[in-house]
Amino acid sequence: MTTHHVDDRAPHSQFDRMLPPRLTVRPGDTVVFETLEGGGQVQPGWTAADFARVDQSRVHALTGPVRVEGAEPGDALRVEILDLQHKGWGWTAVWPAFGLLAGEFPELYLHHCRLVGDACEFSRNIRIPFEPFCGVMGVAPAEGSLRTLAPGPHGGNLDIRHLTPGTVMWLPVLADGALFSCGDCHAAQGDGEVNGSGIEAPMSVTLRFGVEKGANLTGLRFQTPPGRRLSLADEQGYYVVTAHGPDLYANSQQVIRDMIAHLVKTYGLSREAAYCLCGAAVDLKISEIVDRPDWIVSAYLPLAIFR
Amino acid sequence: MTTHHVDDRAPHSQFDRMLPPRLTVRPGDTVVFETLEGGGQVQPGWTAADFARVDQSRVHALTGPVRVEGAEPGDALRVEILDLQHKGWGWTAVWPAFGLLAGEFPELYLHHCRLVGDACEFSRNIRIPFEPFCGVMGVAPAEGSLRTLAPGPHGGNLDIRHLTPGTVMWLPVLADGALFSCGDCHAAQGDGEVNGSGIEAPMSVTLRFGVEKGANLTGLRFQTPPGRRLSLADEQGYYVVTAHGPDLYANSQQVIRDMIAHLVKTYGLSREAAYCLCGAAVDLKISEIVDRPDWIVSAYLPLAIFR
Repeated sequence: MTTHHVDDRAPHSQFDRMLPPRLTVRPGDTVVFETLEGGGQVQPGWTAADFARVDQSRVHALTGPVRVEGAEPGDALRVEILDLQHKGWGWTAVWPAFGLLAGEFPELYLHHCRLVGDACEFSRNIRIPFEPFCGVMGVAPAEGSLRTLAPGPHGGNLDIRHLTPGTVMWLPVLADGALFSCGDCHAAQGDGEVNGSGIEAPMSVTLRFGVEKGANLTGLRFQTPPGRRLSLADEQGYYVVTAHGPDLYANSQQVIRDMIAHLVKTYGLSREAAYCLCGAAVDLKISEIVDRPDWIVSAYLPLAIFR
Repeated sequence: MTTHHVDDRAPHSQFDRMLPPRLTVRPGDTVVFETLEGGGQVQPGWTAADFARVDQSRVHALTGPVRVEGAEPGDALRVEILDLQHKGWGWTAVWPAFGLLAGEFPELYLHHCRLVGDACEFSRNIRIPFEPFCGVMGVAPAEGSLRTLAPGPHGGNLDIRHLTPGTVMWLPVLADGALFSCGDCHAAQGDGEVNGSGIEAPMSVTLRFGVEKGANLTGLRFQTPPGRRLSLADEQGYYVVTAHGPDLYANSQQVIRDMIAHLVKTYGLSREAAYCLCGAAVDLKISEIVDRPDWIVSAYLPLAIFR
């Protein structure tokens, strides 16, 4: 039961069993990963013009891989998420050609957040609880090299907001030693990550590894801890916008358009800031998926974030 | 500020401004609606064979319409959801040709639940918190007659689990007097209503009406109350199954298939009971909708329901 450390000085952007492991650990061991922010290149104080020069081929910036002794294809890699610590700063953005409303925002936009204790200061009047998780966690595939944009059976770009400390997750092992990497830490994110990013932040990530033999998982499973609310910003209730129609994706776009309009009108945000706030704090739920021909998607805005 | 009562003896199944109002009220007035269970025909103790004889043309069984003085097209009808009281019993079901997994269950299946105080007794070992709402709430359209299966700008078959007491909702007024009806009460339901029904139950529903002039809503909005958790079964955490792929509907089907398999294996439920439990208690979330080409849908099973 050793605790190991891996620094952030050799980030990589692929899941590939040919990448040499940074570290080999035994089941039961703990690893502290230092991770760069999502792109591995953004700095506090940058403008949108600086941001335009980010090299997309280097996204994401992952730390690892870590080889876990005894993990073989067919097993499950058990990952206990123990702790994530921020470093005081994070960012979110709008990319004109990316995200749920791609094509509806002409300008690149970068939004910095101060991270102070248990809060993400989105603006002077908007504080989002710090609920951190790794946007990317995954293992090497059986063969080939996978970029990190899409998720897959190996995990990868999961962007699931509830993979916070206290949660236990299971990933299928696809290559000997599992070869686990992580990064792209988010200080906060709503279900959906609608603008294409959470509040991206460099962090120290503490994980404990285990191996469950012959689990034969088809994909990621996880369990959230007892005694903790699923969303910490729930204490003032939610303002909810709904959309109905036969296409869940189009409904999701519509509720976010309507939520942006609500945020602009009610709280005086710019459209771009409102879109970023949706990505950082608004949850997309499938309210019903059976009332043919129209399903309902709802966007939930937690009211406790406003001061 | 009068309190009115409407009984359940003349149910209807359409939203139509030509239906004569059962009652006319003023803004600020409260109405207690007696409602039949969803189909208006099912009885405690019925078997699946009895259930097969339900007349689908009479579904749903709505109480109303209630005319609200001064409500005109372009206004919003404000509905405060004050209280829902069960009558001790509810049901859920599997229909072979209906629901998210239509075609995957060959037999009609009917599942009764006792409702006792604040709990829905799904089985001896499974108790779901009583979190009641009207599956159907809506107003008359500007013209024509609308059946209740699909939701629309008028509301209708909403099946949104968080329209529970304490919540305030706003619907667009489309015809003079709004002409509001409700019914199809659910004692519990997960986000998605995946098997096609919540725990359907007759109830007494207390609502307070208001009119907001010239709101020009495009559809339903609502606000949940402060100081209440969004889901009462959250205290033991959640077991979560995920699916990734380019189609949110197919992903939703896959997570429910996997959740049913988990419930059968872990808790010894029949496939049919597991499917019903998914409809009654499992929440569908869109975890991410931006990591091209694969979005993630997750199914959240609250562990506090198991004894």
